[in-house]
Amino acid sequence: MKTYLDCIPCFFRQALAAAKISSEDETLHRCVLNAVALMIPDLTLNATPSEIAQKVYRIVYEVTGNKDPYQEAKKIANASALSLYSHMKDMVDYSNDTLETACKLAIAGNAIDLGPQTEFGNMSTILEDSLGYQLDQEHYRRFKESVDKAYLILYIVDNAGEIVFDRILIEQLLQIKRLKIVLAVRAKPIINDATLEDAIQVGLNKVANIISSGSGAPATILSQCSTKMKGYYQAADLIISKGQGNYESLSDRPENIFFLFKVKCPVIARDSGYDIDRPVLISSRTLKNTDQ
Amino acid sequence: MKTYLDCIPCFFRQALAAAKISSEDETLHRCVLNAVALMIPDLTLNATPSEIAQKVYRIVYEVTGNKDPYQEAKKIANASALSLYSHMKDMVDYSNDTLETACKLAIAGNAIDLGPQTEFGNMSTILEDSLGYQLDQEHYRRFKESVDKAYLILYIVDNAGEIVFDRILIEQLLQIKRLKIVLAVRAKPIINDATLEDAIQVGLNKVANIISSGSGAPATILSQCSTKMKGYYQAADLIISKGQGNYESLSDRPENIFFLFKVKCPVIARDSGYDIDRPVLISSRTLKNTDQ
Repeated sequence: MKTYLDCIPCFFRQALAAAKISSEDETLHRCVLNAVALMIPDLTLNATPSEIAQKVYRIVYEVTGNKDPYQEAKKIANASALSLYSHMKDMVDYSNDTLETACKLAIAGNAIDLGPQTEFGNMSTILEDSLGYQLDQEHYRRFKESVDKAYLILYIVDNAGEIVFDRILIEQLLQIKRLKIVLAVRAKPIINDATLEDAIQVGLNKVANIISSGSGAPATILSQCSTKMKGYYQAADLIISKGQGNYESLSDRPENIFFLFKVKCPVIARDSGYDIDRPVLISSRTLKNTDQ
Repeated sequence: MKTYLDCIPCFFRQALAAAKISSEDETLHRCVLNAVALMIPDLTLNATPSEIAQKVYRIVYEVTGNKDPYQEAKKIANASALSLYSHMKDMVDYSNDTLETACKLAIAGNAIDLGPQTEFGNMSTILEDSLGYQLDQEHYRRFKESVDKAYLILYIVDNAGEIVFDRILIEQLLQIKRLKIVLAVRAKPIINDATLEDAIQVGLNKVANIISSGSGAPATILSQCSTKMKGYYQAADLIISKGQGNYESLSDRPENIFFLFKVKCPVIARDSGYDIDRPVLISSRTLKNTDQ
């Protein structure tokens, strides 16, 4: 999807929030906003919001000198989500449709996002709210069908903490059938997105093959990705794409992608057709059909 | 009060909202955002937010060529609030403390603000919610005392629609005692702030002497005000200042000012010490005492 003008005020909001977390020096916060302002007139709106967001966060990290301001927040989110791991496993095991419950949990975990919002509330509340809605049954049916036919799944994760919820879904997929699951993480720290370190911290290396996307974008910008990542992207029978950033960068692609995320901003709400706070599971192929 | 860095993303949000109302041409919306962006590096944060907002809206009006984009919204708000006039009069007449009820209504009317927010919901809901809270009794006691001692009140209004709620309070003040009330409106259209035309539309000319502030700012920036406005400002025994913009520009002044407004943004919440959505009646002299 392209960048909307409504994304511009949000870039400033995100830049300031990240600057405040990166440094206490208000002069640096001001420098960050000035640098983002100077970027605006040359902005190409054909780029995706996450491509521009990557540039915005780079400014923050360069100006403040803090290359991983969300490091502590990520560690806490991972630990906090891990403490709910057994409870989530029980929620899945004692449910009628174990795959659907695991999907709902993975989507609910996408609330743990510090880009479009500055806080995500309580981890237990996220868990409690996760089952209180219905997935779009037509999209879910297609997802199950795709899983049935798949041998290789590329699972592109989004945020730290959320990856514990992803682990639940991955383990569920592996219980259903013999599958190779390759899990892609960001190449370096960006916002609270999960990197290799986070994936290992929550034990994802025990259940999937982890690769780096090769890119430090908070999204999957294929032109920035490593050959390995692009190879798995092409080879996968099914791609599971988590979060708004991956949706922004992949929603126009023709591959068999399922987007699992929580809608967190009005721009994504408009683009996806789902309301804010709605948990979403959509097939990229349905998106294509809608366009035609 | 000074401008906070958190105001900067909000300037972009307001600029885009106003540009969309002013013109359907997306190229112009983009031009507006570019022009605001170029303003940022030279911004003096010692100015009040409403002083900078004035510059932002000027850019919108110049770029789009629409000098009064909120004209229609203002007319509708005036007419809609007028249709509730008799009901509001009854609410005051049948209450235990008629002045307090009139104050609560005038504060509730400040919800009709299209600067810090893009919509204000339903007029009837504003009315229903108006009595569901308590005014700070110490501030209200000081307000009553000031009214008792006053001969000349300068009443600085904020928005169209809201001025019907103000009329209720003005009529109540005039019932209590013989008073001269001078009502100040903006010199020219800015956001949905009330001008002379609006004041006449809701019949305020029948109950008060209306003057123009001499300034087109969405605030009371004294250096921009006419000699007449400054004269009444100095001569008044009591100044009633409605809304966030007037609060921003007058909160550091030593005169006997009572600020009546609804808190609509986190910056004003932090500065005033009241939560978002809280209806506020505060004495400027208490603000001074707090500072000391």
